[in-house]
Amino acid sequence: MDFAYSEKVIALQRRLGAFMDEYLYPNEQAVLAELEQGGPWRFSPLIEGFKAKAREAGLWNLFLPDSAYGAGLSNLEYAPLCEMMGRITFAAEVFNCSAPDTGNMEVLARYGSEAQKAQWLVPLLEGRIRSCFAMTEPAVASSDATNIQASIRRDGDEYVIDAHKWFSSGATDPRCKIFILMGKTDPNHPDRHKQQSMILVPLETLGVTVVRPLPVFGFDTLDRVAEVRFEQVRVPAGNMLLGDGRGFEIAQGRLGPGRIHHSMRQIGLAERALELMCRRTQRRVAFGKPIAEQGVTLERIAEARILIEQARLLTLKAAYMMDTVGNKAARAEIAMIKVAAPNMAAKVIDWAIQAHGGAGVTNDVPLAAAYAWARLLRIADGPDEVHRNQIGKLELKKYRPAVQA
Amino acid sequence: MDFAYSEKVIALQRRLGAFMDEYLYPNEQAVLAELEQGGPWRFSPLIEGFKAKAREAGLWNLFLPDSAYGAGLSNLEYAPLCEMMGRITFAAEVFNCSAPDTGNMEVLARYGSEAQKAQWLVPLLEGRIRSCFAMTEPAVASSDATNIQASIRRDGDEYVIDAHKWFSSGATDPRCKIFILMGKTDPNHPDRHKQQSMILVPLETLGVTVVRPLPVFGFDTLDRVAEVRFEQVRVPAGNMLLGDGRGFEIAQGRLGPGRIHHSMRQIGLAERALELMCRRTQRRVAFGKPIAEQGVTLERIAEARILIEQARLLTLKAAYMMDTVGNKAARAEIAMIKVAAPNMAAKVIDWAIQAHGGAGVTNDVPLAAAYAWARLLRIADGPDEVHRNQIGKLELKKYRPAVQA
Amino acid sequence: MDFAYSEKVIALQRRLGAFMDEYLYPNEQAVLAELEQGGPWRFSPLIEGFKAKAREAGLWNLFLPDSAYGAGLSNLEYAPLCEMMGRITFAAEVFNCSAPDTGNMEVLARYGSEAQKAQWLVPLLEGRIRSCFAMTEPAVASSDATNIQASIRRDGDEYVIDAHKWFSSGATDPRCKIFILMGKTDPNHPDRHKQQSMILVPLETLGVTVVRPLPVFGFDTLDRVAEVRFEQVRVPAGNMLLGDGRGFEIAQGRLGPGRIHHSMRQIGLAERALELMCRRTQRRVAFGKPIAEQGVTLERIAEARILIEQARLLTLKAAYMMDTVGNKAARAEIAMIKVAAPNMAAKVIDWAIQAHGGAGVTNDVPLAAAYAWARLLRIADGPDEVHRNQIGKLELKKYRPAVQA
Amino acid sequence: MDFAYSEKVIALQRRLGAFMDEYLYPNEQAVLAELEQGGPWRFSPLIEGFKAKAREAGLWNLFLPDSAYGAGLSNLEYAPLCEMMGRITFAAEVFNCSAPDTGNMEVLARYGSEAQKAQWLVPLLEGRIRSCFAMTEPAVASSDATNIQASIRRDGDEYVIDAHKWFSSGATDPRCKIFILMGKTDPNHPDRHKQQSMILVPLETLGVTVVRPLPVFGFDTLDRVAEVRFEQVRVPAGNMLLGDGRGFEIAQGRLGPGRIHHSMRQIGLAERALELMCRRTQRRVAFGKPIAEQGVTLERIAEARILIEQARLLTLKAAYMMDTVGNKAARAEIAMIKVAAPNMAAKVIDWAIQAHGGAGVTNDVPLAAAYAWARLLRIADGPDEVHRNQIGKLELKKYRPAVQA
Repeated sequence: MDFAYSEKVIALQRRLGAFMDEYLYPNEQAVLAELEQGGPWRFSPLIEGFKAKAREAGLWNLFLPDSAYGAGLSNLEYAPLCEMMGRITFAAEVFNCSAPDTGNMEVLARYGSEAQKAQWLVPLLEGRIRSCFAMTEPAVASSDATNIQASIRRDGDEYVIDAHKWFSSGATDPRCKIFILMGKTDPNHPDRHKQQSMILVPLETLGVTVVRPLPVFGFDTLDRVAEVRFEQVRVPAGNMLLGDGRGFEIAQGRLGPGRIHHSMRQIGLAERALELMCRRTQRRVAFGKPIAEQGVTLERIAEARILIEQARLLTLKAAYMMDTVGNKAARAEIAMIKVAAPNMAAKVIDWAIQAHGGAGVTNDVPLAAAYAWARLLRIADGPDEVHRNQIGKLELKKYRPAVQA
Repeated sequence: MDFAYSEKVIALQRRLGAFMDEYLYPNEQAVLAELEQGGPWRFSPLIEGFKAKAREAGLWNLFLPDSAYGAGLSNLEYAPLCEMMGRITFAAEVFNCSAPDTGNMEVLARYGSEAQKAQWLVPLLEGRIRSCFAMTEPAVASSDATNIQASIRRDGDEYVIDAHKWFSSGATDPRCKIFILMGKTDPNHPDRHKQQSMILVPLETLGVTVVRPLPVFGFDTLDRVAEVRFEQVRVPAGNMLLGDGRGFEIAQGRLGPGRIHHSMRQIGLAERALELMCRRTQRRVAFGKPIAEQGVTLERIAEARILIEQARLLTLKAAYMMDTVGNKAARAEIAMIKVAAPNMAAKVIDWAIQAHGGAGVTNDVPLAAAYAWARLLRIADGPDEVHRNQIGKLELKKYRPAVQA
Repeated sequence: MDFAYSEKVIALQRRLGAFMDEYLYPNEQAVLAELEQGGPWRFSPLIEGFKAKAREAGLWNLFLPDSAYGAGLSNLEYAPLCEMMGRITFAAEVFNCSAPDTGNMEVLARYGSEAQKAQWLVPLLEGRIRSCFAMTEPAVASSDATNIQASIRRDGDEYVIDAHKWFSSGATDPRCKIFILMGKTDPNHPDRHKQQSMILVPLETLGVTVVRPLPVFGFDTLDRVAEVRFEQVRVPAGNMLLGDGRGFEIAQGRLGPGRIHHSMRQIGLAERALELMCRRTQRRVAFGKPIAEQGVTLERIAEARILIEQARLLTLKAAYMMDTVGNKAARAEIAMIKVAAPNMAAKVIDWAIQAHGGAGVTNDVPLAAAYAWARLLRIADGPDEVHRNQIGKLELKKYRPAVQA
Repeated sequence: MDFAYSEKVIALQRRLGAFMDEYLYPNEQAVLAELEQGGPWRFSPLIEGFKAKAREAGLWNLFLPDSAYGAGLSNLEYAPLCEMMGRITFAAEVFNCSAPDTGNMEVLARYGSEAQKAQWLVPLLEGRIRSCFAMTEPAVASSDATNIQASIRRDGDEYVIDAHKWFSSGATDPRCKIFILMGKTDPNHPDRHKQQSMILVPLETLGVTVVRPLPVFGFDTLDRVAEVRFEQVRVPAGNMLLGDGRGFEIAQGRLGPGRIHHSMRQIGLAERALELMCRRTQRRVAFGKPIAEQGVTLERIAEARILIEQARLLTLKAAYMMDTVGNKAARAEIAMIKVAAPNMAAKVIDWAIQAHGGAGVTNDVPLAAAYAWARLLRIADGPDEVHRNQIGKLELKKYRPAVQA
């Protein structure tokens, strides 16, 4: 369980850091202003420019463990890079490493047919299009995935889809061209984990309506989530991924990496908040001394450091386990960081906001949006409660009492 | 210390409740949509309509203890009504009971000259115009009010104002006509509490620029706070309130009621969140039973109820003390509820958000905005830390060790 | 809902305070040393002396609402006196106001036959004997009272009792003469709330064994709880209280006042801890200034004050409701303070311990024992979780969704 | 930063675990009963027997990195073994690995003269005697070590010691023969860190009085701390350690390992509490289902697992850094685990207590004592607040603003 960064990783870290120092930090406010003024349906031209530069610089698709398509980094190797990207809410996109494209590309790389790869994976890898993942539904508690209602019905050479989704991430991006949608092909299958499938749905298919963007705590472009309706949408049978009834199987493979990426980014986000807090409180004086020197501030800075260190190590452990024993054996650890990292980040960011006074809740410092992101992640990809439930059950199993005869 | 509501209050509660049931709850989403679509600089025509009806119904200026101008209710009597208004973020405005107008009207009623009253108090009381309170500054830690830099310089029959303010509440309302600004008339006065004054500045004076609205967690119209510049702004000497150097004195009188109103509204806001949480979790099923019946949900509902009950009682006690022994003797209690109520509300709302899943962070339920409001109030009107400091010092005084000879 | 103290109460407060100042505070350490050296089975001669003085002074049986036997105070009137007693762990006993005698006396006064009263109530009221309440059992989760296994079987003119109890409070006091025991007379009764009964069992009956005292966090005489076995214990049929199957009914009547007394005392205990914290931190200097002036200390003192104030008001409200609408209508409020007060006290005491450094965990200051008491009360008389469950369910009922046809 | 356990460590873990399974767990209650009945001044004959067996088994002095004297394990290697010992409060002593002997042996091994080693280190290594560390004083806030008042005055060939110490750990053990005492040889030295020295004081020297044991939350033998007076105590000049004024230097060397050992043991203690919680809640039924299946229990079990995992990883990182870059470069990490581990353990144990109901606060399960131990460690070796202060300052340094010219 060696968490030291390899030379390859250190070199990438250095290049990534230099890139962010040169392009992203100095333009952070400008990009956010572009996004805000553009409204939820547009993208930032500045980001587009940085993407071109990032691709040139070879800082591209770093997330993809499959070296045929991406950087070929293990989860453990990708962790510190992903963390670094998390420091700025939009940075991952610059390096073609942002959700839900990352997960969608992994699904296509791992389970896609050659035709599916040619049509969708290649442009995604090149950053020419973006994609959406449509799973959650407004009508049911989607934290229990068996509740999902979306219907995917076979009809000849086609599938007919009827669904009402929301929190479909990526959908409001104007370059979004393709959905991966989860729904039921066999709602009556006795094994509930074989009722569901994942299917590719091009955005421009008849019957697909991106109804509206969903603001997250008032932020319009965070995760670019939207409400989407699919009414009698017909796609060719070849759009099915892996096969009927294999949606859960794909989801298992997809969600592990997705969750660890989120955790890594949350750690970067928290580090950034702590940095901002340290800088600000050393510059501001109240009641005769810098806020940094007031006991309460010092306590919170220390607690923040302790919390971040711990969450990072746990995330590295989860990454290490995913790399070495696989996502299934690492499922407790993945669930743990899915809970620990966003909760930690929300707490650290909240302290940083408080230390900034009024500025903290505005958009002049990137803390309010950071908070919204961390807060959303306590719900997205399964709320804390569902993960804790699973962790608790795995723990109880270790001490299962012997059955009494 | 009798907290039972009088018949007068119960009657008002009933009428206020009926009004909100008839007009506000059914139109809550429509009003919020108007505000959102209108952008930060516009107002809601729906609210304007409700204001006219509220005034007709005599549900108007309930906050004003001075019966010459308002309802003549004591703080204790106003508390349950103010709480009720707090349940909807925009409700107080409908009844001409929203900050910062309330505080500004009180200042004018109490300290204004007859001319000042005629010009500004009357239209404010009638809801024809709105007002702004400009105290906080971006350049300094304004939690320590002695840090304030704004200059108010006498020049013949005029005062010349140079100031850079933000979190000036009310300033983005298109009907806002008048500022009460705090600044230094005598920056070198040996008594630091006599350096500052409050002065009336009409919005349309040359040199006043409302630079931009300040979003609060991405919400543009919450409290309608703005950044404002005052450059070589000249106003007649008669615009000074009460006299040079009396700004702190006015602030003391102003902030007590302001803080208790905020606390009352936070309690209403938390009650609303709890109601939404109870309703939602009884309708949604996950893993085989309603979310409401899952242990964690029940625990949080119970804790929320306990926290709300306690915060309400403490607020009533503070109100009672303000009414009976005065704001100064009640300063510990006012500080306590200023800390307790928004922290309680933020916690309860956070649980309610979590119980709503994704919906909780959107604008489809009024929880994310409620959270932003509660969170802002942990900073506005003095951050928690400043109030706790004061409470702690008052407590220590009770047990001051005897000086050793 | 008037919480102001009446003149009668203020006079009693003054006398009680004077008594405690004269006798109890100056001898607190001496009494605790007597108790500690005496071991769990003995009592403190000092306390006995104070009891005589308290009885002479008319500060006796203040808890009893029935004026035929006691002071005739309402719950609201008794609250501030009970709080005062709570400041010292052993003070309530001095005034014949300590659990479980108080609850047992109430049960006898309310439900006892004349013979039962003559034999047990009179000596208890006079403080000549003490009593025990035996409900909890080690073999089952007694938080769910229907789990209780104790058997009370009718056999001719007698009842035969077989039970294994623990946390039987009062049992290790050498003056303890009588148990009130809860157990099942009709384990198969279809209404689970009619299976249980309460019966009087003299300590000296054959088959009763007080097995051992139970330390609470290492403290031997706190609440004087013990493990007790009842093997084939025979008592006359006349020892049954109220009648077969009425145990739950008595428990309901008994537990309300018991819980509110505990809450009141916890508030006193927390006030004492805060006082000790304020005194200590003003006397001790670290890193160049008194600990009291360090930000973290001030924050905690302020939070402690806020928490105490709120818990006290909620306790007064519960008391007021018990007095005016009865224990049943007040059951949510009783449950709330049962949760709120000991949790608050445990938190405040914990801060006070930390502020005392090493001294805080010793017996040189009464904080470690205070913590143990508060901690025990998060479990005793129903653990927090059970009460929160009940509160949560009562809250949900307010918003029960209409049944769908 | 490889945290994987080496084969050597795994083998030791296996042997240590087998030893504990064979001797310690089955006799845990018996040993605790011996300690309790023996009173604070005696030791447990059972432990003595186990010590002999442990020494035979080669499970002895595992803590000592110096292979001339001990097992020659690095901090990282020792960590999992130390954690294992922490599961039972008295286990470390069985393997001659308990504080304060460990720290004292390290000091002697590292800084002792040959004569000092022969006289004290050898019998300590063999477990024939025990030792005490006397630093904290009741009269001052010892968290600020410069407050220490003890006087060590040179007088010819001797030093004369006057001191009033408490929380002197190990002092009530009947086999305790030697103190390491910290005090001032040069109270006026301009460099405050050169005022203090450490000196060896045999217990049987004239003028040494072990005044009384200090209970910790009512537990008499936890850490065996005592109050000790040194009045005109004379020891040969050769008893000085390292030289006059080098006390801080030794303390630095001593405290790092001491703190990490404590943290490791706290992790073991928390693991044990979690195991007990999982076992108990699966066996007990309340309100129709095992307590383990109730939502609140599952949540806490999950949170406990998350907290433990994180604290362990951070402790391993600190150990790794101590091994590779030294105690000084690892000082932030050492401070972090000194805060994180006992706080985590206290929280986990508290949940386990609650899950046990009444049993949790008794001595029938080892949780109340475990809590007392964890709670003590939030104060001992520097209270949380002092460590957080240091961590906060180190963090701020990273972002020190440039001095403005």
